[in-house]
Amino acid sequence: MSNAPDLAAVKGYLLDLQDRICASLADEDSRAAFATDEWSRNQPRASAGPALGGGGRTRILAEGEVFEKAGVAFSHVTGAALPPSATAHRPELAGRPWVALGVSLVIHPRNPRVPTSHANVRFFSTTGPGTVEPGQSSSVPGQTNPVPEPAPVWWFGGGFDLTPYYGYEEDCVHWHQTARDALAPHGTALYPQFKKNCDDYFFLKHRSEPRGIGGVFFDDFSALGFDASFALLRAVGDAYLPAYQPIVARRKNTATNDTERDWQLYRRGRYVEFNLVQDRGTLFGLQSGGRTESILMSLPPLVRWDYARVPLPGTEEHRLHTDFLRPRDWVPES
Amino acid sequence: MSNAPDLAAVKGYLLDLQDRICASLADEDSRAAFATDEWSRNQPRASAGPALGGGGRTRILAEGEVFEKAGVAFSHVTGAALPPSATAHRPELAGRPWVALGVSLVIHPRNPRVPTSHANVRFFSTTGPGTVEPGQSSSVPGQTNPVPEPAPVWWFGGGFDLTPYYGYEEDCVHWHQTARDALAPHGTALYPQFKKNCDDYFFLKHRSEPRGIGGVFFDDFSALGFDASFALLRAVGDAYLPAYQPIVARRKNTATNDTERDWQLYRRGRYVEFNLVQDRGTLFGLQSGGRTESILMSLPPLVRWDYARVPLPGTEEHRLHTDFLRPRDWVPES
Repeated sequence: MSNAPDLAAVKGYLLDLQDRICASLADEDSRAAFATDEWSRNQPRASAGPALGGGGRTRILAEGEVFEKAGVAFSHVTGAALPPSATAHRPELAGRPWVALGVSLVIHPRNPRVPTSHANVRFFSTTGPGTVEPGQSSSVPGQTNPVPEPAPVWWFGGGFDLTPYYGYEEDCVHWHQTARDALAPHGTALYPQFKKNCDDYFFLKHRSEPRGIGGVFFDDFSALGFDASFALLRAVGDAYLPAYQPIVARRKNTATNDTERDWQLYRRGRYVEFNLVQDRGTLFGLQSGGRTESILMSLPPLVRWDYARVPLPGTEEHRLHTDFLRPRDWVPES
Repeated sequence: MSNAPDLAAVKGYLLDLQDRICASLADEDSRAAFATDEWSRNQPRASAGPALGGGGRTRILAEGEVFEKAGVAFSHVTGAALPPSATAHRPELAGRPWVALGVSLVIHPRNPRVPTSHANVRFFSTTGPGTVEPGQSSSVPGQTNPVPEPAPVWWFGGGFDLTPYYGYEEDCVHWHQTARDALAPHGTALYPQFKKNCDDYFFLKHRSEPRGIGGVFFDDFSALGFDASFALLRAVGDAYLPAYQPIVARRKNTATNDTERDWQLYRRGRYVEFNLVQDRGTLFGLQSGGRTESILMSLPPLVRWDYARVPLPGTEEHRLHTDFLRPRDWVPES
């Protein structure tokens, strides 16, 4: 079956993507390099529920000149039973064995003029009874009347979003333009849809505030069949560096000061709030007995909270709220 | 009914408790004072579900010499329908109108040798159909055959727990001894039970690690009837200062250094993780459309996260894990 899920191909792509992203970011930083932490978990954790397997290759750059903390993680994990957080939209899959492969990254630059970025690309598949094993047909041997293929039980997801501390129109336009252009060959309806997904998802409910200026985001995606869906995933994964690196290069040497640093640390608090209170990936990871250090590598290196802090009107900090942290159409849809 | 819930008495006690605690902590700090932020919410928020009312008096001390951030909040809030997070143990109450009064505090000292402390005392009551309004009998006018009183739909909760960055046996013993002695007049079974509640509750599941060295904690408490339950609440509320202040006084001038400061900031990350991922009060507040700034005043002023940080064996930081962050019987049970 030419259009059957190909786990090995996905894995190969993801490992290469991680390599390429780390190499480019390390180039951008003149001081620090990525350290690699390979890990595996082949035994059930005492306190976790179902057995878990697999492992990962977490890469962390800490205390760089440009990047205060950059984490780029590949993981390939399996579980004996899907936890509720993963199956909110597909309750019929609860409790099934599963496999998940992905690259997830969060980059926290040192200079407040450089935005934080997040990206991930992932493949998810259940492997339970009555489902199609990746690479297998669903025909049951010995069954004389073939039944229709069951609904797909694999999907892709991913995207990238940008979180500035100080707003630059041209950076936001470049970010969204790169996303739009990468998606265009796969369907012009995708960018507006994925952009809206991103705006909807990265929104702090308890603050009534977007996390940043968005980007693109998709999940539960199998609509194009495996080959074309995988090509879409690659388009998104491959677009991250061209979207982010020019912004880093343009802003990393901007003069800054303690006031801006303080604002950056304060705004990073919103990132923590989103990831720990709302993020599906984080909650899925923690609920499924995932590897805490890898899941929480997204948290910023240094963060501050202040009570009822409000920027003064007329300042750049205030302009971040009024001009950037609201849903905007940064580029024409196609 | 002499044993009927007395909302006004609870409110009076809580406001006075807030005054006393703030005055004593301000005395302990030679530089900063508490600022008071009175707030109210008498209209439904656009994005929240059911209508919310009430208000509060939040007091914050920021950038003190002894306390880097101290928040002591009184609130008296009402809602038209109980959210799920408040009714996990009492599903029959979901959707009912409610009123909640409480004092909640978190103290983040500057010196890493002084532990962080948290306390809260609260009263909760539903006011919906079929329930007993505080201060009213449940007899239905005109009904000739009085039915038995329904199960209590008000309760008290509260407690206090301590989170050291460096362990001192004598501080932990003093903390638990004060709690035990305060509870003893209300029943010798209470301390062991409330101590266990606290150990069970303040445990970071995803770290398999206690948040600190515990204390006492209780919830859904109405077992002694209103008067005696309220007396128990006061015993807990009144014990907080005698439990904490001597520890602050003893440690606040201890010499410290950047390594210890760094460790404190790192360990504060656990506090954030607990409050945003697990804490019932935080989740209840955010889910019920509560006032975000008051709810999140518990978050530390400055926090750091490091990937896979493990203290070296033989250090005091390592000893915190091995000797203090594990369930221990700090004092004899009675």
